[in-house]
Amino acid sequence: MNCIIIYDIVDDNLRNKIADACLDFGLQRVQYSAFFGELSHNQKETLFKRITRLIGDKEGNVQIYPICEKDLALKQVHIMKKKTDEK
Amino acid sequence: MNCIIIYDIVDDNLRNKIADACLDFGLQRVQYSAFFGELSHNQKETLFKRITRLIGDKEGNVQIYPICEKDLALKQVHIMKKKTDEK
Repeated sequence: MNCIIIYDIVDDNLRNKIADACLDFGLQRVQYSAFFGELSHNQKETLFKRITRLIGDKEGNVQIYPICEKDLALKQVHIMKKKTDEK
Repeated sequence: MNCIIIYDIVDDNLRNKIADACLDFGLQRVQYSAFFGELSHNQKETLFKRITRLIGDKEGNVQIYPICEKDLALKQVHIMKKKTDEK
């Protein structure tokens, strides 16, 4: 199933570790603190456990939402990139 | 339908305006830059247009995903709050 993972993590080092965990599971970064991709039910459970273990007793908020194909077809994305300096 | 809105916005003022727009539509803040709640199809379109108009030519990344009840039942959330100072 497709899943989106979003997180609020204050500690830079911990945040990077969580990003690495998402990358390890083949997810793609869609925002600075959001990843998206295909996970089996077991992978979703394993990744979630790994992340909660990484957080331990540190401050953090992690949320994983499965997104079915029907919902995915209705997603809306708007991206404005940083303009390069005019010289 | 239930929707999750996530955004990466560098400009503080713009980010606050987007949060206000989400609040105006009755959404609840679930993370610093993520809101969740019920939107009709029209409300989803209107909110998305309002947000893209707010962003204009500024840097930003906004994504809205509908989340059906079946997906919602499989969401996973882990929250560790900041510990209060021990005195």
